[in-house]
Amino acid sequence: MKHYLNISDIDHLPTWVDEAIQLKKDPRAQQHLGQGKTLGLFFFNNSLRTRLSTQKAAKNLGMEVMVMNFGTDGWQLEYEDGAVMDQGCAEHIKEAAQVVSQYCDIMAVRSFAQLQDRDADTAEKVLNGFKKYASIPIVNMESATAHPLQALADAITLEEHRKAKKPKVVLSWAPHPRALPHAVANSFVEMMKAQTEMDFVITHPEGYALNPNLTADCVIETDQEKALTDADFVYVKNWSSYESYGQVLNNHDHWTITPEKLGKAQFMHCLPIRRNVVATDAVLDGDQSLVIAQANNRTFAAQLVLQKLLEHQSKIK
Amino acid sequence: MKHYLNISDIDHLPTWVDEAIQLKKDPRAQQHLGQGKTLGLFFFNNSLRTRLSTQKAAKNLGMEVMVMNFGTDGWQLEYEDGAVMDQGCAEHIKEAAQVVSQYCDIMAVRSFAQLQDRDADTAEKVLNGFKKYASIPIVNMESATAHPLQALADAITLEEHRKAKKPKVVLSWAPHPRALPHAVANSFVEMMKAQTEMDFVITHPEGYALNPNLTADCVIETDQEKALTDADFVYVKNWSSYESYGQVLNNHDHWTITPEKLGKAQFMHCLPIRRNVVATDAVLDGDQSLVIAQANNRTFAAQLVLQKLLEHQSKIK
Amino acid sequence: MKHYLNISDIDHLPTWVDEAIQLKKDPRAQQHLGQGKTLGLFFFNNSLRTRLSTQKAAKNLGMEVMVMNFGTDGWQLEYEDGAVMDQGCAEHIKEAAQVVSQYCDIMAVRSFAQLQDRDADTAEKVLNGFKKYASIPIVNMESATAHPLQALADAITLEEHRKAKKPKVVLSWAPHPRALPHAVANSFVEMMKAQTEMDFVITHPEGYALNPNLTADCVIETDQEKALTDADFVYVKNWSSYESYGQVLNNHDHWTITPEKLGKAQFMHCLPIRRNVVATDAVLDGDQSLVIAQANNRTFAAQLVLQKLLEHQSKIK
Repeated sequence: MKHYLNISDIDHLPTWVDEAIQLKKDPRAQQHLGQGKTLGLFFFNNSLRTRLSTQKAAKNLGMEVMVMNFGTDGWQLEYEDGAVMDQGCAEHIKEAAQVVSQYCDIMAVRSFAQLQDRDADTAEKVLNGFKKYASIPIVNMESATAHPLQALADAITLEEHRKAKKPKVVLSWAPHPRALPHAVANSFVEMMKAQTEMDFVITHPEGYALNPNLTADCVIETDQEKALTDADFVYVKNWSSYESYGQVLNNHDHWTITPEKLGKAQFMHCLPIRRNVVATDAVLDGDQSLVIAQANNRTFAAQLVLQKLLEHQSKIK
Repeated sequence: MKHYLNISDIDHLPTWVDEAIQLKKDPRAQQHLGQGKTLGLFFFNNSLRTRLSTQKAAKNLGMEVMVMNFGTDGWQLEYEDGAVMDQGCAEHIKEAAQVVSQYCDIMAVRSFAQLQDRDADTAEKVLNGFKKYASIPIVNMESATAHPLQALADAITLEEHRKAKKPKVVLSWAPHPRALPHAVANSFVEMMKAQTEMDFVITHPEGYALNPNLTADCVIETDQEKALTDADFVYVKNWSSYESYGQVLNNHDHWTITPEKLGKAQFMHCLPIRRNVVATDAVLDGDQSLVIAQANNRTFAAQLVLQKLLEHQSKIK
Repeated sequence: MKHYLNISDIDHLPTWVDEAIQLKKDPRAQQHLGQGKTLGLFFFNNSLRTRLSTQKAAKNLGMEVMVMNFGTDGWQLEYEDGAVMDQGCAEHIKEAAQVVSQYCDIMAVRSFAQLQDRDADTAEKVLNGFKKYASIPIVNMESATAHPLQALADAITLEEHRKAKKPKVVLSWAPHPRALPHAVANSFVEMMKAQTEMDFVITHPEGYALNPNLTADCVIETDQEKALTDADFVYVKNWSSYESYGQVLNNHDHWTITPEKLGKAQFMHCLPIRRNVVATDAVLDGDQSLVIAQANNRTFAAQLVLQKLLEHQSKIK
């Protein structure tokens, strides 16, 4: 694996999940792997879990970490090829990516969707810009269209908490006051498609269909109640419209997850979560909530990814 | 000790002070204690001394440190139980505290008083929110009402510089252009009440009485000159009115500390200090100033606290 | 060497360059030197290369690093002696410098020119304030008038890429949409004056003469084409007028560096660079560009400086 940009960079998901679960038993056993290696964490957007868990993962592997709020600590980047840079941007991605590659052995980038222009978000100019010009492996810490560290953590959490032989997992849209990106939902869908022993249903109101290329083979049910029937896991997430790109459509308050809707299922969410909007307090404070277990698994998802990249680097040398 | 939130978390102050003074002789002697342990420093407000000295202390103990400006790097937190989170706050303290507990072994928090509402500040929603929901020890890096790392550093400094058998220590209010919190003064008072061999006097203009519950047993003298007579240490600090909560009352420029007022006493202040407002240049640049010694002791106060928390953790395992 | 504030702090440039080139062969060979030592990086301005390369250098030497955006994370500093601090500044440089000296073994500071007042910038109040009051060595990470870490990295790059016995090096002004400081150009000139086996020419439009005290012995040629003839290295940089201090004078778009102007010379720039304003894409993407090599050498320039300071400290103890 050269980069970790997407769930599709995982060769065999069940193996990775097993490896991550093994790694949790003694997280600092591979301290030698990262000795003398440096991870750069570059944030163009806010972060709590990703910021802390990725640092923690790197330290577990013995790496040095340099964290930088790229947007505010560094220079505003230009991404256009051939641009005449006489406006606000002081540095081109071509130089930024090559320069960072001089100081780091692996870099990780967070750059959210702007939800203004679907084609622009789909182009992933920040992540792909770094990929194109950097000479080191890149880890996606949530880009415009994908959050594969979250989805890997979710896969670990599903495995650790599954009881049924073939559990039913439902991805349910939920309301939110602001327009949110599709990255978490996209990567969750991709991860579920790589699962071999789970049933998967997506449910959302009309108008909130995800990228149809991604969900082509998925069961989609716009009746939330029907979708949730006999669920073992309910993964909840808001996203804005993909068709009416970036829009928040009519009020769908009745999509809030309640204990009644949840039934006997276990509840999952990537956090941060708006209490009593996305899900009620009773759901989040109840025994069926796995949100903290998911957050904890972010460390081990990141650690497995970094370990794979370090192993790949030492092999090619 | 489970947390370090207040001076009252110290079981026996003189013993702690002795231990801190011992620890200064070889600050890195306990490197093994923090091996593989992570400290999270979370700032909701600015910081120089606390930011650097607490990091330094953790590194002296062999810990990893993750520093985060919580307010700007993470998500705005909701503290109300049962809130319907459809406004500006993206994450509830319940999740934030539990999540941070997954990545850190100890966390430290700075969150100042807002000086708008006395009851709100007294409730210490940030510090107490983390305490209530976190599963790891919490260190107070200055909350709305207390700054116990500063007061412990001050106790060490007093001990190192005392000459008299029973020195007289005066806490004197001083002028300042802005309304300041009571945290430093509160913790200094609490620390002085735990001293066994010192005389303690508080002096401030009319209207600037500290929380009367805290100063119930203290000698209070509103005539500054009288209070300062024969002082061995003068600890200077501005605070806004507690009664007219958060207000700056009439002009009290004549309360500025001068060499004449100081006499033979040693001068203490927590820093940052407004020169020629709180105290004159001659005081700060003179031989009787202990402010840099106090700042230096911040490292060892923090280190002793972290050491106690690490030792407690290893005992209960 | 007590501090590294300027190129003049280097006793013998060719020796330093040789040492840096040696050090690159095994950058982590001196891990013991920095054990238990702490470097503080204090930024009053944005930074990418300096921020990352100086951290990397310190880690290569086994040091701990504390990074702080001084302006936004700490307190606004007062620099005037005798100031009555009843306005916006909460802390005086006298205390800030002494306090930082308690927690760090070496400190590094970035504080750019403000380009409002030549005398004020020349006074270097931030860097000189820290120098005056700190008790630890100070490294200049770009001050109002000098950027000696960049110039040392440039000297290393020149040495690694020289082919001619006595190469001709041209420092050429280039256009830029904003008013920029003179620091990089100044230190490059000073560094070139310390070179023994190179020819040096400065070229700039009328009105852009650098500080004449600095360039007194230099060849200056205002005809860019003439200056660039037979150049082996072209070091390109914009700066605002020194005479009409901080001003951007008439349009000089024709000073943009193109492959035609470059000829067979190798191209150097400190980055960040405005593409197609300072130099065209063809220059930056061509084989003659050394900009990434220069950025890479920032690590080893910083590392050599830190190593010299650590060795000096251990000698005087």
